[in-house]
Amino acid sequence: MSDSVIALLHGPDQPGLVAKTAGWIHQRGGNVLHADQHLDRDENIFFQRVEWQPSADVEIEDEMGSFRSLVEGELGMSLCLNRSDRRPRIALMVTKEDHCFHDLALRHRAGELDADLIGVLSNHDTLGGVSASYGLPFVHIPVTKETKKEAEAHQLEWLTEQKIDLLILARYMQVLSPGFLEEVECPVINIHHSFLPSFAGARPYHQAHKRGVKLIGATAHYVTQDLDEGPIIEQDVARVSHRHGTKELIERGRDLEKLVLAAAVRRHLQHRVLVYGNKTVVFD
Amino acid sequence: MSDSVIALLHGPDQPGLVAKTAGWIHQRGGNVLHADQHLDRDENIFFQRVEWQPSADVEIEDEMGSFRSLVEGELGMSLCLNRSDRRPRIALMVTKEDHCFHDLALRHRAGELDADLIGVLSNHDTLGGVSASYGLPFVHIPVTKETKKEAEAHQLEWLTEQKIDLLILARYMQVLSPGFLEEVECPVINIHHSFLPSFAGARPYHQAHKRGVKLIGATAHYVTQDLDEGPIIEQDVARVSHRHGTKELIERGRDLEKLVLAAAVRRHLQHRVLVYGNKTVVFD
Amino acid sequence: MSDSVIALLHGPDQPGLVAKTAGWIHQRGGNVLHADQHLDRDENIFFQRVEWQPSADVEIEDEMGSFRSLVEGELGMSLCLNRSDRRPRIALMVTKEDHCFHDLALRHRAGELDADLIGVLSNHDTLGGVSASYGLPFVHIPVTKETKKEAEAHQLEWLTEQKIDLLILARYMQVLSPGFLEEVECPVINIHHSFLPSFAGARPYHQAHKRGVKLIGATAHYVTQDLDEGPIIEQDVARVSHRHGTKELIERGRDLEKLVLAAAVRRHLQHRVLVYGNKTVVFD
Amino acid sequence: MSDSVIALLHGPDQPGLVAKTAGWIHQRGGNVLHADQHLDRDENIFFQRVEWQPSADVEIEDEMGSFRSLVEGELGMSLCLNRSDRRPRIALMVTKEDHCFHDLALRHRAGELDADLIGVLSNHDTLGGVSASYGLPFVHIPVTKETKKEAEAHQLEWLTEQKIDLLILARYMQVLSPGFLEEVECPVINIHHSFLPSFAGARPYHQAHKRGVKLIGATAHYVTQDLDEGPIIEQDVARVSHRHGTKELIERGRDLEKLVLAAAVRRHLQHRVLVYGNKTVVFD
Repeated sequence: MSDSVIALLHGPDQPGLVAKTAGWIHQRGGNVLHADQHLDRDENIFFQRVEWQPSADVEIEDEMGSFRSLVEGELGMSLCLNRSDRRPRIALMVTKEDHCFHDLALRHRAGELDADLIGVLSNHDTLGGVSASYGLPFVHIPVTKETKKEAEAHQLEWLTEQKIDLLILARYMQVLSPGFLEEVECPVINIHHSFLPSFAGARPYHQAHKRGVKLIGATAHYVTQDLDEGPIIEQDVARVSHRHGTKELIERGRDLEKLVLAAAVRRHLQHRVLVYGNKTVVFD
Repeated sequence: MSDSVIALLHGPDQPGLVAKTAGWIHQRGGNVLHADQHLDRDENIFFQRVEWQPSADVEIEDEMGSFRSLVEGELGMSLCLNRSDRRPRIALMVTKEDHCFHDLALRHRAGELDADLIGVLSNHDTLGGVSASYGLPFVHIPVTKETKKEAEAHQLEWLTEQKIDLLILARYMQVLSPGFLEEVECPVINIHHSFLPSFAGARPYHQAHKRGVKLIGATAHYVTQDLDEGPIIEQDVARVSHRHGTKELIERGRDLEKLVLAAAVRRHLQHRVLVYGNKTVVFD
Repeated sequence: MSDSVIALLHGPDQPGLVAKTAGWIHQRGGNVLHADQHLDRDENIFFQRVEWQPSADVEIEDEMGSFRSLVEGELGMSLCLNRSDRRPRIALMVTKEDHCFHDLALRHRAGELDADLIGVLSNHDTLGGVSASYGLPFVHIPVTKETKKEAEAHQLEWLTEQKIDLLILARYMQVLSPGFLEEVECPVINIHHSFLPSFAGARPYHQAHKRGVKLIGATAHYVTQDLDEGPIIEQDVARVSHRHGTKELIERGRDLEKLVLAAAVRRHLQHRVLVYGNKTVVFD
Repeated sequence: MSDSVIALLHGPDQPGLVAKTAGWIHQRGGNVLHADQHLDRDENIFFQRVEWQPSADVEIEDEMGSFRSLVEGELGMSLCLNRSDRRPRIALMVTKEDHCFHDLALRHRAGELDADLIGVLSNHDTLGGVSASYGLPFVHIPVTKETKKEAEAHQLEWLTEQKIDLLILARYMQVLSPGFLEEVECPVINIHHSFLPSFAGARPYHQAHKRGVKLIGATAHYVTQDLDEGPIIEQDVARVSHRHGTKELIERGRDLEKLVLAAAVRRHLQHRVLVYGNKTVVFD
């Protein structure tokens, strides 16, 4: 199939939005492949994800530029535009735990992720060997309290050089500084090992065990400067009982973390996730 | 809010379908409230659910007639049209078991169903008293092998007189004859107490217990002449173990049956379910 | 089947506990129907639920007394003893919302709860009529800031008079005072409409909508003086999306609340729930 | 902790069984670590899993021999005995699909499986390279219609030589012959990619897509001579919609297959699964 354009747009509702975007595409000879919209009636905001194949006679960059004029100019809405032939470049940040790392590396190899996995950043060298076994560049940047600033500068430099489109914290055990988050030029997705907002912060399985909950959870979210408070992309839970000590919670939790992070990454890469305020609209 | 029109349409895909329906609505001064579409790429069939408010200047019946010309005439697609101000009239068929009956009667009373519950048909008089306690007309039509034909004629007569739009088999323990299904003028939804196609036919919990499954299920489907083989609208499951005998499966199953039937009925009444072939598209 | 005894015991682990209780029962001619135990290795606490039929030659009260001596005396453990022929007496506290009320009243009528439902306490008279339709005594005790103390005294008096064994807050919208909780002589189970510890306090669905979670939950717990912090008995969740406004969360949440509260009540009444510290062991 | 013995026993119920096994262990100075029992009241069969540490004065093999005499001799019950210090030896059979293979190999490496993974048998050489990357012996035995008998003889020889205790079909795409199953000396666990008994046989996701089910499933079971009809150990499901074509069902199904197979294997290796008739009792 030839290349398509995927647009995520949102803004104040106004009459005829669906007709205007679909009509614009149709008039230029394009063919809508998917279109999904949502109206938040409380806040009167209109959200749309639309994917189309432009006419063979049109340059895709021209199509995108014109569509941007329509949406941002004429309609006064926010727009995020992507083209299906541009594979996103992704990088992982890891520490020592390897379950999310292996899960994503294997999904990448199996072709489940529509992205190129460029490399692995780590503050430890533990996962250097397995990264190599997948043929993945491994960049070891140690981080201590004293060197954190420099280390982050080094990380940012690598991310920029490599033109990374999405950074995935696959159980990276360091908090990224506000400075890093201001300067990083791509979205950052983290997996938190609890059902947020329960058990934010450190050692969530220990907190969960102490509270005696009957379900444990995992949450994938975009990272913002407010720790564990960014927009949630995906969550899931698993049933536990008094028979599960903290060790068993940690073990069961691993499967949850893998699935929830992979689901969030997959949807982000399919340009299905639209952020507004501190929430997400995730188009199916 | 003023009245809206809800259309479910499907047919062979062709360029510009989204633009054509949305454009038609917009040009006549209508406002799209929701639109959702799906393209089955294997079979190249386009499905759409679109809801809009016509312009205040337009008679709603004219709007519907013109839209029908567009879709069935010009676009050559199948169409099912409804108006939001026309509350569907629904009826229940029951035997002796009352859990789905109470569940639907209470949801109706709580305003969860966008429909008028006109009455209850039964081949036994067991639920006559509780029907009365909800203020629901109760029509007792005994059915024996010998009288089945007459009984069904009587049932059909009542359904026609009452202009029923949806008939719900809330654990009705008789098989409806092919003749009944040919003549009945409204869709019929049944709840089967298994995860179809597993354990079709009689006594599904006994079958499930014998096979030693680890999950039991329930399935809501449209009734067709092929017993337990009609288009599936909704399914769900619950975990069981060796500790559950047949009696416990039946008890746990009741909650599943209630939830699955209610979900299917709710979606049908919101005009979210589109049948094609022996399958359904259920718009969220 | 003749009557059985159900014991829940816990205390520091020591060698031979399973043998000692089972041996004691066997030597006196009793027959173990169920036995389940759990050892918390972190805290070295042993938990057991054992149900047995005493010999026909033994008075059940004697059996219970002697077993109490064994467990509390000889073994130095905590014990909670019940007999299967003594149906617990339960009462509901409600305000205006009726979904948990109907659910429990119908389950009671269907014989799903091994208990007698003695009556309904309410601070409003809204549910008086439907209580009557189930043949349930309805006690209307209005509560205002000024009269709360008196009202609670009145409630306690009724609970004592009626010898209530379990009080169920079926969406009762008042906070019970510390004084009430000190004086009430039976356990109190509450349903909170969130996945605790997330969204404790008021208006949890509004909190959940604001935070943009992808699952909503419900939690049944024993009520203690720390609001929404008592031992959790049961929890469950349901998937939601951006399409669900606060109104839809509330509607979907109702089904969760019904199921979670009913599950907790059922297990409590089967003497399967053992409280220790601020947690529960729930034997399957 | 020193070594323990794990017994799975079942047979006709009789008075005092719990007391007799626990008493026997206690009298010989042993300490029960876990004990769980179940009584199938319909068939009057008693099931028990009991794990204990024998006294330091006793040889573990003597303890096991004596316990066998008690259970099989005196009590007339069936017994399966294992010792915790004897790590089971497991082997995988694979064809070309690698998701279950990687999942189990990684869980093995992470120490999640209490077993030694001895090697990989395959009818294709596709997974030879990745087996090597895990340091796993890979035995390539091609199978054609003509060579099937010989090939199976070769497989059996390897399994016997390697003293394999559990053979896992991790998406092995050949049917094992009745002769193989008669001669193989260890249990065989298979993962079937549907919610059995729905969609037994070939291409279950295609069958599921055609039937229009709303949930897909996976089932792990012991292999018997009746294809896809052996005792079920574990099952789970995932929600799908009209948006999922066969390709998406296959992709989503992979995660289910991994989790369900791993759960079944883990429980088998913990000696928690007791087979009787064509069903299993899985102790938590």
